[in-house]
Amino acid sequence: MTDEDRNEMVVTPWEVRGKVDYERLIREFGTQPLTDGLLERIVKLTGEFHPQLRRKLFFSHRDLDTTLDLYEKGVKFVLYTGRGPSGPVHIGHLIPWIFTKYLQDKFKTRLYFQMTDDEKFVIEEDLKLEETTHFAYENSLDLIALGFKPKDTYIIFDVQDIDLLYDIALEAAKRITFSTAKAAFGFQESTNIGWIFWPAIQAVPCFIHTKLTGEKVPALIPAAIDQDPYWRITRDIAQKLGYYKPAQIHCRFLSGLGIGGKMSASEPETSIFTTDQPATVKRKIWNAFTGGKGTAAEQRTTGADPNICTVFQYFYFLFEEDDKKIAERERQCRAGETLCGECKTDLAERINEFLSEHQKKREKARNIVDKFHIKR
Amino acid sequence: MTDEDRNEMVVTPWEVRGKVDYERLIREFGTQPLTDGLLERIVKLTGEFHPQLRRKLFFSHRDLDTTLDLYEKGVKFVLYTGRGPSGPVHIGHLIPWIFTKYLQDKFKTRLYFQMTDDEKFVIEEDLKLEETTHFAYENSLDLIALGFKPKDTYIIFDVQDIDLLYDIALEAAKRITFSTAKAAFGFQESTNIGWIFWPAIQAVPCFIHTKLTGEKVPALIPAAIDQDPYWRITRDIAQKLGYYKPAQIHCRFLSGLGIGGKMSASEPETSIFTTDQPATVKRKIWNAFTGGKGTAAEQRTTGADPNICTVFQYFYFLFEEDDKKIAERERQCRAGETLCGECKTDLAERINEFLSEHQKKREKARNIVDKFHIKR
Repeated sequence: MTDEDRNEMVVTPWEVRGKVDYERLIREFGTQPLTDGLLERIVKLTGEFHPQLRRKLFFSHRDLDTTLDLYEKGVKFVLYTGRGPSGPVHIGHLIPWIFTKYLQDKFKTRLYFQMTDDEKFVIEEDLKLEETTHFAYENSLDLIALGFKPKDTYIIFDVQDIDLLYDIALEAAKRITFSTAKAAFGFQESTNIGWIFWPAIQAVPCFIHTKLTGEKVPALIPAAIDQDPYWRITRDIAQKLGYYKPAQIHCRFLSGLGIGGKMSASEPETSIFTTDQPATVKRKIWNAFTGGKGTAAEQRTTGADPNICTVFQYFYFLFEEDDKKIAERERQCRAGETLCGECKTDLAERINEFLSEHQKKREKARNIVDKFHIKR
Repeated sequence: MTDEDRNEMVVTPWEVRGKVDYERLIREFGTQPLTDGLLERIVKLTGEFHPQLRRKLFFSHRDLDTTLDLYEKGVKFVLYTGRGPSGPVHIGHLIPWIFTKYLQDKFKTRLYFQMTDDEKFVIEEDLKLEETTHFAYENSLDLIALGFKPKDTYIIFDVQDIDLLYDIALEAAKRITFSTAKAAFGFQESTNIGWIFWPAIQAVPCFIHTKLTGEKVPALIPAAIDQDPYWRITRDIAQKLGYYKPAQIHCRFLSGLGIGGKMSASEPETSIFTTDQPATVKRKIWNAFTGGKGTAAEQRTTGADPNICTVFQYFYFLFEEDDKKIAERERQCRAGETLCGECKTDLAERINEFLSEHQKKREKARNIVDKFHIKR
């Protein structure tokens, strides 16, 4: 692979690599930019300008405006997001979940969270179904640790809950041709038939609320934009099935600690897992890619580049909510007043503080995880 | 459509038309002929030469010999057959079920019977899921009316039982590429993704016995040969999944009452449904295609042709088990001693006698159908 190939942007539901151009993604995926006007509407409705909105972590949407129109007319919405449980959760996964919690709290709405153990099994050559089902359980502890409550949070475990999903999935699948699925996902002759069917399962949580409650409301999906093709085809069939089109709000990818690409469980040294111990976190952060210079002397003179720094990115997206403090950190970096080692030490401390609490909550979640299962 | 097109043999899991050449089917499907040697083995093991075997209704197999080898060594098998519930059951459907009952009684083995309401829904443009699920229930009454007992008969209702099927279906689906499925079933760009996945669901009853009981035994499938492609691909993956390859024994198609083709629920006047009333049966039989001549006088002189006669075929395959009597009926037909009207009157009487009893048993089955559901 040449450097040019490595930098070429690839964004599919299964692979994100290269330098991501978010404006180009909006054009290519055919979504709408999250304008200042829309941000203001959200702030007005929620009474809070969430840091992830201020920092423009969310940048794109589909039908968020019409969903808010409906909301203002008294038609609520449900939230829907999920996780492909192919391994342990890393900090990058938590970011949209934290934002989802904010939306849930402010709009007082139900969340359907899909654990796609079936998807990860059919897609990942080497994973066994027991493994993805195990990860689905373990990953759900991370979700619960963020403070979601069973009263309005329904975790869908695909394999375990298939009895609730299958009829809706069949309704969806009947209306999605191979041709459509191929165009959306790049399916090939060698793709297995489980993978080909699976988009019908990912469509279900958009509609399941009506089945469970009789209420007809739209779903709003906070998720990374790479998942958009699933809901694009779901949107095409929603009205034929008598439902609202699902709306989406798309976030950027949090880079791994290496150069480029999103944080990925397949490169463990560049991802901070929620179960990592303090020494591991320190080591990983210490080896992180930054915008620093070859020598301390040079950096003192010319300053460093926070734009390409994975450590700065962590502060920016999750570990420094104070706008003044993040601006000061950026200034000091550019001015060469702080060196990378200081930022790394700070970040490792912040992460370890966070994880220390998170890991306690995560263990407590084992006692209540059953309450998040959908009752029959 | 020209006469030549109409006569061209087409045998797929969804369509059977034209003049069926069974020797050619054995060659094209790559199955084995059911030899006299194998028939003798069955008779020796069962103590009965079942009329459907004597009359060569079953003509082909896969691995029946190795299944009997295993049986003789003490490894039992389970039976598996099923029904696509797209409408009411007609008499043609009952024939392999009656044979299955004989195998079950003689070999004292469990039967898994799959009601594929999901398949019929995704395949048939105009059918709703509630309809196929309704037919699945109604059709199961016909099965039960034949005398199957809940103790060793497990009816799988696909949608209702998906929680039992899905994990095995995923294991199968992961190992079947689109390319393989396309080659076996002729899938196209316009095929919906539910249909494409479905062969994985049809594979499940071959393996479910192990999940339910821990026993590892092969499945023997009595079915019409048009369903062979499903189990051909199942056979290819069985051993990778740690199971025996499913064995099959294939029957001919019972023609409808019109010219050529198998009895089809889509041409109601050429099919005798199990719920038909006596007057309807008389009318349908009276309009049946026979091997008779233009006038009674001509037929008295030259005789008729039982080979192409749908009425004779009904006697042969189901309504005259006595070999001497069927031979005498054939002789009289060829000699012009009986006319078609007499045979039709006889057949309508036989069918109505059968249906009168069947319909009573069918209604009683409503009281016990729940006992055939798989317990959780």
